[in-house]
Amino acid sequence: MKDYLLSHQKMVDEALESYLPKATVKPKTIYKAMRYSLFAGGKRLRPILCLAATETCGGTPEAALPLACAIECIHTYSLIHDDLPCMDNDDFRRGMPTSHKVFGEGIAVLAGDALLTIAFELAALVPGWPRYSVGDIIRELAIASGSRHLIGGQVVDLESEGKKVGLSILRFIHESKTAALLSSSIRLGAMSTNATPSQLEKLTSFGKALGLAFQVIDDILDVTQTAEKLGKSAGKDLMAKKATYPSLVGLERSRKIAQKLTKEAHTILKPFGCKADVLHWLADHLLAREY
Amino acid sequence: MKDYLLSHQKMVDEALESYLPKATVKPKTIYKAMRYSLFAGGKRLRPILCLAATETCGGTPEAALPLACAIECIHTYSLIHDDLPCMDNDDFRRGMPTSHKVFGEGIAVLAGDALLTIAFELAALVPGWPRYSVGDIIRELAIASGSRHLIGGQVVDLESEGKKVGLSILRFIHESKTAALLSSSIRLGAMSTNATPSQLEKLTSFGKALGLAFQVIDDILDVTQTAEKLGKSAGKDLMAKKATYPSLVGLERSRKIAQKLTKEAHTILKPFGCKADVLHWLADHLLAREY
Repeated sequence: MKDYLLSHQKMVDEALESYLPKATVKPKTIYKAMRYSLFAGGKRLRPILCLAATETCGGTPEAALPLACAIECIHTYSLIHDDLPCMDNDDFRRGMPTSHKVFGEGIAVLAGDALLTIAFELAALVPGWPRYSVGDIIRELAIASGSRHLIGGQVVDLESEGKKVGLSILRFIHESKTAALLSSSIRLGAMSTNATPSQLEKLTSFGKALGLAFQVIDDILDVTQTAEKLGKSAGKDLMAKKATYPSLVGLERSRKIAQKLTKEAHTILKPFGCKADVLHWLADHLLAREY
Repeated sequence: MKDYLLSHQKMVDEALESYLPKATVKPKTIYKAMRYSLFAGGKRLRPILCLAATETCGGTPEAALPLACAIECIHTYSLIHDDLPCMDNDDFRRGMPTSHKVFGEGIAVLAGDALLTIAFELAALVPGWPRYSVGDIIRELAIASGSRHLIGGQVVDLESEGKKVGLSILRFIHESKTAALLSSSIRLGAMSTNATPSQLEKLTSFGKALGLAFQVIDDILDVTQTAEKLGKSAGKDLMAKKATYPSLVGLERSRKIAQKLTKEAHTILKPFGCKADVLHWLADHLLAREY
C-alpha cells in the first residue's frame, strides 16, 4: 500500500510538473510563487483519492489525472489565500514560510488566483464521458470550490473567529471547507470512468464521511501535536479562539466521532468488494495519523 | 445605438441577477459582497462586446449570454483583487467604496475568488458548437484570465510600481491586463455562433487593437479627468509613479496612438460589411470617452 501511495504521488507530481509553466517563463514571479506552494511537500491526498475512486470503479488512473491535478491546484490556492494576514494569518505551512511571507501579499493573492484559474484550464482537458459531459465535470468542480462550499465555509470560519459557535456551525464549516472538496475529488474520479449512478452515489457518501472524519482529526492534531511535527503553527485554532471539535465536545468524544465516521465510511464501501481495498486503506491511514 | 446599449446591458444585468444566488442565501456576506461589486454600475462593456460579436457572425445574443456573464464575473473579480491594499490600494471604484473598504479585506479576497469560480460554472452551461467544444471555451476563458494574460499583467504591473519602465513593458501590461480579456470577450462571442476560422481571426485582431486603444484612453483619462467624473481616485497612477502612456510619450502622442489603434480596428472589420455596424459604433464610442 505504501508503494501505491508513492507511485500515485509520483504520477501526480510529474503531471503537475508538466502542466505548470516553468519558473523561467515570464513573468517569472508568478510561476515561482505557484510552484513554491504547489511543490511544498503536499501529500496529494485529494488527487490520490480521485485516482483511487477511478480505479475502484474499474478505470485506469490516467483517465482522471487532469482532474486530480486540477483539484490539487484548487486545494493549494485555498491554502495560500487562507494563510493571508487578512484571513487566518499563518506564517508557516508544511514547515515552510507561507506564500505571503516569501513573495509578499500581492503576489500571494495572485498566485492563488492563478492556481484557481489553471485548475479549470486543466479540468477542461478531459474528453467527457457518456454519463458525464465536460460541462458536468467543470460545474462539479466549480460548485465544490465556490461560494456554496469551499469559499462559503471559509466565510463562516472567518466570521466565527472569537465568537462562540455551536456544533452545527462547526459542522457546516468542516463540511464546506474540507468535506466538500474531498468528496468531490472522489466523485470526479468516479465520473472519469463513467461510473453508474449507484456507484457515484455510494462514493459520494463515502467521501462525505471521510472528509468530515479528516477534519475532526485535523482539529485533534492541532491540540495534541507540536508545531514541529505539524509543520504549521500548532495550537493556532486555540489561540485564535476558533471553534474546533475538541474545544466543543472534548478530545475523547472527538476521537470517538472520528472513529464512528471512519467506520461509516468503511461500511459504505462494502458493495465494491475488494475493488475498494485502496479506499479502505486510505480511510484507515487518515484515521491513524498520529494523535 | 443607445437603445442597443441599453437593451443589451439590461439583458446582461437580468441574466447575472438570475445566475447569482440571492443575498439572502447563507452565508449571506459572500453573496452581498459578490453582488455589491457586480451590480456597482459597471458598463458591461466586455459582455456587450461578446454579444455584439455573436451578432456580427450571424447569431442571436442569447447563445452567448452565459459566457458574457462569466466574463463580467471575471472582470469584477479582477477589480476587487486589484483594489486590495496589497495591490493598487484603491478606496473608490465607480464612485463607491471598494469591496475591502465595505466588507474587510478577508471577505473582499473571498468575494473575488467566488466570482472567479462562478464564472467557470456559468461558462460550463454552454452546449458547445461543432467547431468549438465546451473544453475549448473553458480553456479560452482560463488562458485569457490566467497567469499568461490577466494575472501575468497584474504581476508585472505590481512589480513595476515606482520603477522606470519602458514602452515595451507598459505595452505588455496593457495587452495582458486589458486587451487579452477584451479580445477574448469578442472571440468567445464569435465562438458561440460557430464562427468560421477566418471570422474568428479577424475578430481576434479587432479585439486586440480595441483593447489596447481602450487602455491607452484609460491612461489619458486618469491624467485629464477629475475624481468625480471618473468615479475612482484620479491621478492615482501618477501618484503611484506608475508608467502610463501619457507619462512615457506625452498626452498628445497618446491620443494619436489611441486614434491610430481605433482606425486599425475599423479597417479590420471591413469584410463584415454592415453586420459589424455595432462593433464599429462601440469602437468609436470607446474612443470618444471624454478626454
